[in-house]
Amino acid sequence: MELAPDDVEWVTCDSPVNIALIKYWGKRDEKLILPLNSSVSVTLNQEEVWEQSMKNARLQSVISQIKRLCRKRKIDGDQPNEKLQWKLHICSENNFPTAAGLASSAAGYACLVYALSKLYGVEGDISKIARLGSGSACRSIHGGFVIWNKGDAEDGEDSSTEQIAPETHWPELRVLILVVSDQTKHTASTVGMQTSVETSDLLHQRLQGVPKRIERIKKAILRKDFHSFAEITMKDSNQLHAVCLDTYPPISYLTDTSHHIMQLVHAINQDNSSNMVAYSFDAGPNAFLFMQEKDVPTVLDILHYFYPSSDPHFIRGIHVPGKHDTHVDYTAFSDIKVIPRALKFIIHTKPGPGPSVQESDNGLLTKDGLPK
Amino acid sequence: MELAPDDVEWVTCDSPVNIALIKYWGKRDEKLILPLNSSVSVTLNQEEVWEQSMKNARLQSVISQIKRLCRKRKIDGDQPNEKLQWKLHICSENNFPTAAGLASSAAGYACLVYALSKLYGVEGDISKIARLGSGSACRSIHGGFVIWNKGDAEDGEDSSTEQIAPETHWPELRVLILVVSDQTKHTASTVGMQTSVETSDLLHQRLQGVPKRIERIKKAILRKDFHSFAEITMKDSNQLHAVCLDTYPPISYLTDTSHHIMQLVHAINQDNSSNMVAYSFDAGPNAFLFMQEKDVPTVLDILHYFYPSSDPHFIRGIHVPGKHDTHVDYTAFSDIKVIPRALKFIIHTKPGPGPSVQESDNGLLTKDGLPK
Repeated sequence: MELAPDDVEWVTCDSPVNIALIKYWGKRDEKLILPLNSSVSVTLNQEEVWEQSMKNARLQSVISQIKRLCRKRKIDGDQPNEKLQWKLHICSENNFPTAAGLASSAAGYACLVYALSKLYGVEGDISKIARLGSGSACRSIHGGFVIWNKGDAEDGEDSSTEQIAPETHWPELRVLILVVSDQTKHTASTVGMQTSVETSDLLHQRLQGVPKRIERIKKAILRKDFHSFAEITMKDSNQLHAVCLDTYPPISYLTDTSHHIMQLVHAINQDNSSNMVAYSFDAGPNAFLFMQEKDVPTVLDILHYFYPSSDPHFIRGIHVPGKHDTHVDYTAFSDIKVIPRALKFIIHTKPGPGPSVQESDNGLLTKDGLPK
Repeated sequence: MELAPDDVEWVTCDSPVNIALIKYWGKRDEKLILPLNSSVSVTLNQEEVWEQSMKNARLQSVISQIKRLCRKRKIDGDQPNEKLQWKLHICSENNFPTAAGLASSAAGYACLVYALSKLYGVEGDISKIARLGSGSACRSIHGGFVIWNKGDAEDGEDSSTEQIAPETHWPELRVLILVVSDQTKHTASTVGMQTSVETSDLLHQRLQGVPKRIERIKKAILRKDFHSFAEITMKDSNQLHAVCLDTYPPISYLTDTSHHIMQLVHAINQDNSSNMVAYSFDAGPNAFLFMQEKDVPTVLDILHYFYPSSDPHFIRGIHVPGKHDTHVDYTAFSDIKVIPRALKFIIHTKPGPGPSVQESDNGLLTKDGLPK
């Protein structure tokens, strides 16, 4: 989205959220947003856009990096351009329910950086620029299964992202996002991870174990080994939240409802003698449940049973036809309480592609550069 | 309590509960109940007795160890006795609210072992026998501040307890036990710690850090340095629960109410610019709050404010006179929600002595050996 007195150029993009399987928690450089550990994520098939004041330091940093690349191209002998003089009008919109508390800044910065790269005609590894906006935004630049290698260089040049496999690699994988009803006020993850680095003894042990865990989940993804994928994902989520609790003062993102979901997932898996579902929690109480397409009806039935809701739009996203007839035997879950209205709603999605350019008809700005 | 056809002997004892400041979590020997790390506790001024089936393996183990010591005395040249032929009648009573979910097996086994040692006339380190009943029972054999050194020997001979300071050393120290309303079903700590040893990577890091932490809390206790005492106590509680969360499947003892109490305690301490209160949580959601006598009225006022209750017996134990006039400025706590009826009640107590023999009039058995 772009405006100049006699010449208006604009670009409209969308960008996905991503959910980390091996979590990013702790920076080795606050300014360059370099992580203490590598992380692995899956990009979700959901669009999201975002808004923020132009005065934000990270936003400025992202724009100046794009301009730097643009300037570099010019020097390299490409056509001279006036782009560096342009005034920018940026408009963003979030079509992902904000209540989901998802990594919205990640999708937002990925979208912005992608849009700016198209507008300024710059190429190269834009994930490094996205990272300057929000660490995990660099993972949203790719679709499918993504690794963010932490790198060792002081300037962060080797802190880069790479696709492990595209979203088409494991088409059976599904994600249910369980948006819990009691959204509590959280410690911002930026502040939270800083405090963890300063105070948590256990974080050091975690950092030692991450490389092995990453190797294992890469293998599980490439082999489509759901049982291992689930176990590693759940263990990593639990370990992240353990480190949060070991932080001083402690940070707590999981609520009673989150713990109830965890308990239910383990009960489902135990009853199934193999992992049918995996949970992962970010810096909030909402659960991301992973499963295979064939198990979605069973899991949805169980969720309906334990978290009854009268909302006709309780399940959103990918449609699952009809009333299921999954014959779940609830005697295996006799320890677990039914909690009406524990969940606000559920979003049904799957791994998806990276950012893309949209048809200009869908733009958010008028040709005068003002929000529609 | 003891019965023989023509000869009845009995002894009635009481024994205190203890709360760990540096927690015991994980055994290096399941049968001998030898811990992976040393722990530090404070014995509370509360009595408790307990009941259990005689068939219990640990109970049998405790009785046979007492008899072994008795036999040894006899061989050593003491008067021969018929005690080894005695039939035992044991009766126990718990005057500590079971809802408090306290380490009741610890107090119960400490009491039993102490009573048996009096009855059989055996001497020596009975804390090692108490340990065979329930690990942390060995700490209830002493009053005041107690350390349980983990020991290294395979047979556990060097796994012993020792008093750091008697309860009279720090007479200003007070304990509030916050019994929360929603008592959830917990993983038994025996099973829980076993699973942690098998599955938690973070437990290893914890074990490496405990010796230093123990040195620091011993110093804080000896110097009556409440600020440090509070910080170490809270960090250790948080770390134990972090390890529980890192266990697979995860173990969760803390509820939303527990986390709310933690948040409130940190807010109080921050507002006070120095630690006024410390929390510690065992294998359940109830909080043990430590503070100095002078701060009890302020802390009680704040607890009344955030956890309003209409129960006339809301505060139990040591009496705090009248309506306090502590002038707490609640604007410092504007982030924290008021939760009516979050707490069932509060027990106000302080560090206390070890087990003692009671007047026989207070016995629980008739002279026929039956419960009164």
